[in-house]
Amino acid sequence: MPDPFTPRPEDKFSFGLWTVSNRGRDPFGEAVREPLSPADAAAMLGEVGAWGVNLHDNDLVPIDATPAERDRLVKEFAAACRRHGLVVPMATVNLFYDPVFRDGAFTSNDRTVRAYAVQKTMRAMDIGAELGATIFVLWGGREGTETDACRRPDEAIKRLREAVNYLCEYSIDRKYGFRFALEAKPNEPRGDIYMATTGAYLGFIPTLQHPDLVGVNPEVAHEQMAGLNFLHAVAQAWEAGKLFHIDLNDQVSGRYDQDFRFGSANVKSAFFLVKFLEDVGYDGPRHFDAHAYRTENYDGVKDFARGCMRTYLILRERARRWNQDREIQGLLADQLPNGAAPYSHAHRDALLGRTFDRAALASKPLSYERLDQLTMEVLLGLR
Amino acid sequence: MPDPFTPRPEDKFSFGLWTVSNRGRDPFGEAVREPLSPADAAAMLGEVGAWGVNLHDNDLVPIDATPAERDRLVKEFAAACRRHGLVVPMATVNLFYDPVFRDGAFTSNDRTVRAYAVQKTMRAMDIGAELGATIFVLWGGREGTETDACRRPDEAIKRLREAVNYLCEYSIDRKYGFRFALEAKPNEPRGDIYMATTGAYLGFIPTLQHPDLVGVNPEVAHEQMAGLNFLHAVAQAWEAGKLFHIDLNDQVSGRYDQDFRFGSANVKSAFFLVKFLEDVGYDGPRHFDAHAYRTENYDGVKDFARGCMRTYLILRERARRWNQDREIQGLLADQLPNGAAPYSHAHRDALLGRTFDRAALASKPLSYERLDQLTMEVLLGLR
Amino acid sequence: MPDPFTPRPEDKFSFGLWTVSNRGRDPFGEAVREPLSPADAAAMLGEVGAWGVNLHDNDLVPIDATPAERDRLVKEFAAACRRHGLVVPMATVNLFYDPVFRDGAFTSNDRTVRAYAVQKTMRAMDIGAELGATIFVLWGGREGTETDACRRPDEAIKRLREAVNYLCEYSIDRKYGFRFALEAKPNEPRGDIYMATTGAYLGFIPTLQHPDLVGVNPEVAHEQMAGLNFLHAVAQAWEAGKLFHIDLNDQVSGRYDQDFRFGSANVKSAFFLVKFLEDVGYDGPRHFDAHAYRTENYDGVKDFARGCMRTYLILRERARRWNQDREIQGLLADQLPNGAAPYSHAHRDALLGRTFDRAALASKPLSYERLDQLTMEVLLGLR
Amino acid sequence: MPDPFTPRPEDKFSFGLWTVSNRGRDPFGEAVREPLSPADAAAMLGEVGAWGVNLHDNDLVPIDATPAERDRLVKEFAAACRRHGLVVPMATVNLFYDPVFRDGAFTSNDRTVRAYAVQKTMRAMDIGAELGATIFVLWGGREGTETDACRRPDEAIKRLREAVNYLCEYSIDRKYGFRFALEAKPNEPRGDIYMATTGAYLGFIPTLQHPDLVGVNPEVAHEQMAGLNFLHAVAQAWEAGKLFHIDLNDQVSGRYDQDFRFGSANVKSAFFLVKFLEDVGYDGPRHFDAHAYRTENYDGVKDFARGCMRTYLILRERARRWNQDREIQGLLADQLPNGAAPYSHAHRDALLGRTFDRAALASKPLSYERLDQLTMEVLLGLR
Repeated sequence: MPDPFTPRPEDKFSFGLWTVSNRGRDPFGEAVREPLSPADAAAMLGEVGAWGVNLHDNDLVPIDATPAERDRLVKEFAAACRRHGLVVPMATVNLFYDPVFRDGAFTSNDRTVRAYAVQKTMRAMDIGAELGATIFVLWGGREGTETDACRRPDEAIKRLREAVNYLCEYSIDRKYGFRFALEAKPNEPRGDIYMATTGAYLGFIPTLQHPDLVGVNPEVAHEQMAGLNFLHAVAQAWEAGKLFHIDLNDQVSGRYDQDFRFGSANVKSAFFLVKFLEDVGYDGPRHFDAHAYRTENYDGVKDFARGCMRTYLILRERARRWNQDREIQGLLADQLPNGAAPYSHAHRDALLGRTFDRAALASKPLSYERLDQLTMEVLLGLR
Repeated sequence: MPDPFTPRPEDKFSFGLWTVSNRGRDPFGEAVREPLSPADAAAMLGEVGAWGVNLHDNDLVPIDATPAERDRLVKEFAAACRRHGLVVPMATVNLFYDPVFRDGAFTSNDRTVRAYAVQKTMRAMDIGAELGATIFVLWGGREGTETDACRRPDEAIKRLREAVNYLCEYSIDRKYGFRFALEAKPNEPRGDIYMATTGAYLGFIPTLQHPDLVGVNPEVAHEQMAGLNFLHAVAQAWEAGKLFHIDLNDQVSGRYDQDFRFGSANVKSAFFLVKFLEDVGYDGPRHFDAHAYRTENYDGVKDFARGCMRTYLILRERARRWNQDREIQGLLADQLPNGAAPYSHAHRDALLGRTFDRAALASKPLSYERLDQLTMEVLLGLR
Repeated sequence: MPDPFTPRPEDKFSFGLWTVSNRGRDPFGEAVREPLSPADAAAMLGEVGAWGVNLHDNDLVPIDATPAERDRLVKEFAAACRRHGLVVPMATVNLFYDPVFRDGAFTSNDRTVRAYAVQKTMRAMDIGAELGATIFVLWGGREGTETDACRRPDEAIKRLREAVNYLCEYSIDRKYGFRFALEAKPNEPRGDIYMATTGAYLGFIPTLQHPDLVGVNPEVAHEQMAGLNFLHAVAQAWEAGKLFHIDLNDQVSGRYDQDFRFGSANVKSAFFLVKFLEDVGYDGPRHFDAHAYRTENYDGVKDFARGCMRTYLILRERARRWNQDREIQGLLADQLPNGAAPYSHAHRDALLGRTFDRAALASKPLSYERLDQLTMEVLLGLR
Repeated sequence: MPDPFTPRPEDKFSFGLWTVSNRGRDPFGEAVREPLSPADAAAMLGEVGAWGVNLHDNDLVPIDATPAERDRLVKEFAAACRRHGLVVPMATVNLFYDPVFRDGAFTSNDRTVRAYAVQKTMRAMDIGAELGATIFVLWGGREGTETDACRRPDEAIKRLREAVNYLCEYSIDRKYGFRFALEAKPNEPRGDIYMATTGAYLGFIPTLQHPDLVGVNPEVAHEQMAGLNFLHAVAQAWEAGKLFHIDLNDQVSGRYDQDFRFGSANVKSAFFLVKFLEDVGYDGPRHFDAHAYRTENYDGVKDFARGCMRTYLILRERARRWNQDREIQGLLADQLPNGAAPYSHAHRDALLGRTFDRAALASKPLSYERLDQLTMEVLLGLR
């Protein structure tokens, strides 16, 4: 009997090139793993059973590459992906590593830096399109402040809007067909990053010229850093038709960006998330934006990548059991369907005239302790 | 010479009836202050120099009052406000205190509870309109979960939308002219509250039937509980034309809801906030949603209320100094105005063809350490 | 076959009287459950299979009871405990509910309040001793500040020391044989509570007159509120011989005090904790200091109490599997035993003269990603 | 008239060599500043008016330096310090940067790594002693875990104790006269670091062979990361006679390690800290363990260093005003001195027999809102 937790292409598991190639450098320590070439990373992802690989422009093409080098590198990587059975569903741009972005990219006070950031993104879109990507992620890692003395934050929002509007035009113009997915983060590497939450981006998108082209890319760690309920953010994005991409990993609240293996820090939250994605029929990539512990060598990186996918599949199977559990479903049966009547004078008067028995309503048993304990027991494999 | 930090009506300082009447009860302790009647609270607010007083329906009218009692209480309170020179700029509804709301109001799984919550809000709107309020705040304190097993969060959002749509119709129908201000909070009293941040509401509003009638009511403590930069949330709301109201208080991050005196926990954040509100010309109420320490008697409550307003005025004066400080303005002078060119083929080609000197851009001095130190010295009264 | 997760007396599961009697009142809402008498609470605990019940003085005896009432209540409760097969392993004192303690008890600025707090504790010790308790917990819920202007914190520490020293003398004098367990908490209900962490109390204890009588009572929620690793705190206490008691519950970091059902918020942390307690042979009470969601009636409270014990037993079984898992043990096998040589001139010179191959040491595989994934799979019931 | 906020040697302001030499590298970005040699760093510190400079072994001597290089570098640095009027009050050891320490140093599972860590520390002590340092800081940046599966935490504590005991012996043996200052941190770069708080170290020290030689080095950012009140930790250390050193900087709670300029994130906390250090007569170094924003060049680094010292001096002056403010002192006057009577039968009986008027005690005005508002106004320069 085959292992039910073996990843298959239809699971749409993808990894960033930067995730398996992460060398374990941190603010207090040097890299612990040797560089891994894009081709070797693709080979590793093929070996562990991934479906897709995503990348920043500079994961593949150095920031100072010549056009010829760029063309060669993209071509070779496309070949490596074919060789290892990988697609490139998403591309993005690195607007945070180079010192030129030390005070932001699209929101920099320096108009020339802003122009450079837009140019760099256009070129990253070219690379993504050439590799077949249809989703373009924008994460503004340096768009923020250590002191709010440096810039009015509403000014930053205006600049960000200009940039995104321009890039939408470029995508339309070039017929790239990109859907942009905006990724929020509250802080790190800046003291505070603008557009701190997925919600903030959901509020920003309707103010754009092409709101239909733009959605969000929520990341587990980024919401959980701020102690927010990730499922709730994902559900809002989904309900608004804006869940264009998702970044799966794990994170303990109130800490530095940890990017842990999916499900390894808060497996209950991960369970509810997987259940939601499967229940609603999300069919985009399941992208793991995480990296292996700094204690690992490249064998450990493979363990890490396999663990991300395996845990997702385990939780998916648990979600199915939860949906089929009679006691659980019995506890949920009281939930009446939605669908309030629309406003009318008749309805208004009826509602205002209605008498409610507060005490009776307050005394109906809800049994959420039992429901949650049963959920835990499904999760722990006891039901 | 008059004290420059004495509140005046044009400062538009308002307090919730519940703030000065707060009796200091908490999860671990009994009330420390005797009940304060609405009329006595109005007298106190008049005495300390407030301009306005806001209220929940049940701050004034008990949940089980008869219509006659309700009318009398509203009338008496209106008289008390006139007597003490107070306006009622904002009203709201209590959908969290009574056990009927133990699992939510608009988002409850129980359709009857949802209907009751809408009815109760309509009646609260009646009270608010009768008292002259033009802003109606909705804070969904119980709209949330302790376990996400109990409800799909997208279902909760749909229910919330239905309720807000209905209430907008009611306001239009009755010609109340309310502007609704939605107030976010990440958690407490629920494990997680839906619509955790101001950003989430900014994303929700465009999905409503009357988005023009609906804005936000950001609260310092609610964003800071999650460690988010409050100024950034306010600026996004302002830039989107959605800053309909604001709740001023203070809070240490990552803790229970503290509702401290304005400026008492993080005076630098409070400074940037006041500076922003004054710089952009926000002309709505400056509402203090805070309460005195549990160590205080009602004299201490007055000290608390006076302190909120006084600190605001001190920070406003500091913001003026900051704007006039030559060295500070010199450091900011490099900020070029915004205004990128719109997309065109010519602009696209020019931008793609442009060469950027990254090293030169990265080496321009920014002097933000100096700028922030000067800001601190303005704040501390040294410049 | 009997359910392996049924609690038995030898499991030493205890609950605070205040936990199952919690009425669901919170800062934003009224009580949702009717009062439960101590005798009824004992009956409920007997029914669900608990071994012990703990109490604050005022859980049983009102603060203003006469001596005769006090005697009757204690006697009746002792009888109820016998009737329901419960022991009273631990007692404590309520120094936080009454307004007299609004600014602290042992550390109050008011010497009379301090004296009263000591007297009240002595009487609570009398009650505890009468009921057979051998552990006396001290939690200083109001020992703290909202503003550090009010008191020098070193002064507070001195006052706290005086009180604990006095109470040790009283226990010795009365031959009560109490072991005192000090319970830390970082904040709530005070802005900051003195002795914020278990570590702080471990540092305080050696400065007492009778350090041997005093240990700690770490609580899951209290360390996790501050985002600290609870296991590490417990391990330090255990290693120092100071783990006199433990409070089990659960809590999301960076939030109000939630006191959730054990294992329901972070089941992985709960697993490591149970594994540690079982591995080291901790034989004190497993005390659940938690309460049911506010959505529950008393049937839900029973579900809650059963769930706490059941989850503990499930995790204990999983810990056994982990200890017996060959692959896991194989990954751990490289851990050499401890036992460095003591300092000597010969050892010193040998050590200073030794050459280390850093690169070789850094390249040994550690396989912690694999180890953690296997741990997750044991936890999820897959191994 | 001289500027009252100019640093003088008697202020004992010191900086780590690593602080002004920090190049602004972070997990998401490359270095923004060129390397600064130790001699140039010393020159810069002399120029801005610092009194002392501290260092890790590898700030000065590369990890693979030959003994001859090491001797030359130490000698040259001593000369540079003399040239720029700097003392070296403290030295420390880098046990976190090299990949050999990826899973800890003193607590590593690998006995050889542990031995190397001790050897490296002994050599760092040699350097420190040669430069005149009398305080030796130990910060165990890698002593921790990402998964608690890897090691029993009590085992880690035992290993740590062995190492510290050995190093104490070495200091005694060599007649170095070091006082060791242990520095706690809750997380980053490890998921969880052992000995997460200053309190944990205060509990650890009494279990050592030479507790008198060992104290703590609390760091503002490290306690504030966990949302803890830094003043309370410092006060406990001071009261226990264990405040051997202090690391001043600033930090927003619940975030990555920010190491901001002193007083720039939470100036009120900084005020109470400075007030405490000055009030109690702390006469050790005021060490700034912070670094300039990544937006800065080396002129900005000087601004940063000057700002740290200047803010300290401003707050010291404010603390003096606070101590002399009559209204403030009037509000504090009710604080009766400490000094409870020792335990005796007579005192016991008197105390048990005493009657307390709880209502009267609870109704005494405390005026902490007023006190805190006055404190804010002293801080803001208005009194």
